[in-house]
Amino acid sequence: MSTADRSGAPGAGPLTTAQIAAAVGVSVSTVSKVLNGRTDVAAETRARVEGVIRRHGHRRQKQRGTAPAPLLELVFRQMRDAYAIEIINGVQLVAREHRLAVVLSELQGRHTPDRGWVEGVVARRPAGVISVFSGLTDAQSGQLRSRGIPFALVDPGGEPAHASPSVGASNWNGGLTATRHLLGLGHRRIGVLAGPKGSLAARARLDGHRAAMDTAGLPVDPALVRTGDFHAEDGLAHTRELLRLPEPPTAVFACNDAQALGAYRAAAQAGLRIPDDLSVVGFDDLPQVQWTTPPLTTVRQPLTEMAATAATMVVTLAGGGPLRQTRVELATELVVRESTAPPRH
Amino acid sequence: MSTADRSGAPGAGPLTTAQIAAAVGVSVSTVSKVLNGRTDVAAETRARVEGVIRRHGHRRQKQRGTAPAPLLELVFRQMRDAYAIEIINGVQLVAREHRLAVVLSELQGRHTPDRGWVEGVVARRPAGVISVFSGLTDAQSGQLRSRGIPFALVDPGGEPAHASPSVGASNWNGGLTATRHLLGLGHRRIGVLAGPKGSLAARARLDGHRAAMDTAGLPVDPALVRTGDFHAEDGLAHTRELLRLPEPPTAVFACNDAQALGAYRAAAQAGLRIPDDLSVVGFDDLPQVQWTTPPLTTVRQPLTEMAATAATMVVTLAGGGPLRQTRVELATELVVRESTAPPRH
Repeated sequence: MSTADRSGAPGAGPLTTAQIAAAVGVSVSTVSKVLNGRTDVAAETRARVEGVIRRHGHRRQKQRGTAPAPLLELVFRQMRDAYAIEIINGVQLVAREHRLAVVLSELQGRHTPDRGWVEGVVARRPAGVISVFSGLTDAQSGQLRSRGIPFALVDPGGEPAHASPSVGASNWNGGLTATRHLLGLGHRRIGVLAGPKGSLAARARLDGHRAAMDTAGLPVDPALVRTGDFHAEDGLAHTRELLRLPEPPTAVFACNDAQALGAYRAAAQAGLRIPDDLSVVGFDDLPQVQWTTPPLTTVRQPLTEMAATAATMVVTLAGGGPLRQTRVELATELVVRESTAPPRH
Repeated sequence: MSTADRSGAPGAGPLTTAQIAAAVGVSVSTVSKVLNGRTDVAAETRARVEGVIRRHGHRRQKQRGTAPAPLLELVFRQMRDAYAIEIINGVQLVAREHRLAVVLSELQGRHTPDRGWVEGVVARRPAGVISVFSGLTDAQSGQLRSRGIPFALVDPGGEPAHASPSVGASNWNGGLTATRHLLGLGHRRIGVLAGPKGSLAARARLDGHRAAMDTAGLPVDPALVRTGDFHAEDGLAHTRELLRLPEPPTAVFACNDAQALGAYRAAAQAGLRIPDDLSVVGFDDLPQVQWTTPPLTTVRQPLTEMAATAATMVVTLAGGGPLRQTRVELATELVVRESTAPPRH
């Protein structure tokens, strides 16, 4: 059940409660209190117990009442649009298969859960935790690990070096493919709505774009690359500016679908038709972009499969099984619809 | 905790386990087995116990271990788009306030939960259950009621006569307001994408439309009213047919936003501009319709508030409090954006 055996020193398996108590020099009931998240233990004692658990892991005794509850925890940094539904559906798929119920939390935009959330999880004793976008602090990971609660991250943000198992998408390939599609249609001046500076996923998509331009022997004009937020409003503002350049782009690669919707608005406001006057490619393939006018050509990010993969990792760890990979990246795929066409000239 | 005291005969409060046992003429342990969902009780005995519980209610004894878990259950018939996110956010709002975690289930399109779902709920002992679109069978309601688990329905479908507390929206008013808006702009021939025949909500919206036409002294041309499903595909097919009529409508009232997106597509395919050549009004106000081109004029259905209201009802019942109302309808509201304008001629 514990995941610590994957990182422990050779031969040093996880310790029983009694062994932890002996190592720290406290009573078994004190160790139990720490394991159960009780607060009536001196901070210094707690720290020593948590330290031993972190180093060696805790082997949970099989006994009635300490088996995990048939729950999976799914925690979002923020739930805003259909993006979240795709992820929930992926987790539900795996949960149903294993007869687990899904507990859903939202951190209202915070990057790490607060203490109340962790205490709730510890009290509910789920089979595992799947987190979307948000990481746990080291202390929080330690708390879950010490209680044998496995944890995996659905990480469209793109950080490959997580301490915990994680699932991402091939963002760089997606950027490459989107731009190659536009180049193949004959576009040479391509605007990029690049997304936030801090996002590795956005950076990877932009680098994929650069690689495609480079391979085609074309320069990337810095005036055509616009960083901003992943919102429709940003797509609108940036595309508006791009269209006012002395030599405007004939195509725009929006690094997410929301910004592509903003680009649509900017084109309409400028009296331009998509794809006749401006081609647009998005990234994500949210359900609604099939129904934009015209339907959006976009890079599909397999959110449902990413979430199902993370849930499967957690269920595997909960069952005591090893993971074949602790970092998985699923392929993105270009979906060609009607928002791209050869440039006019 | 029990809701039965709201419907019982005067002076007949809910019964204790011992009183139920005495009334049926079985042992206390038999009644407990029925209350705990165990299957080793003869069907006929079970039916008699459940019958007494249904008639009189069950007063749960306060004892350690039988207090509800700090959970709210939220069950969807189906989760497809941003519609579901609005509802989840409303429930989370109330759950956070009361320090409850939310367990999410989806019935994959089924109208009533299966037995496995009910057994899971009974085992988790949540503070209450909120169901979206799906009803419970009488037996299922009885199972929850007998265990003191309150239940409320978020019901955009519009059935006012639920046995359980429920929250809906003022669909008829919404239909009236949408059509009055179009009449005020000068439209006389108005197409209606009416939604499914079986949906009371759809029927109420259509009746609101008829009332607006009637009050304005205008006939409703049956050729302009199209029943179908609440999907974009239906909106596309029906609007295409409407636009091919000898005397096509100058405006379309789509009884949900998805169909309005289909109407946009049909207009584009016919070479018509919205709103210059065709006005479109939707119903729902999903987040993405702010970003259609042009932004959609629509009737807002306050899904987040509806869900929060249902969650509050459940929390109130769980706390032993009475409900002021068991059926609540929240107001819809016209949101005027850019998809409506006076007709050309």
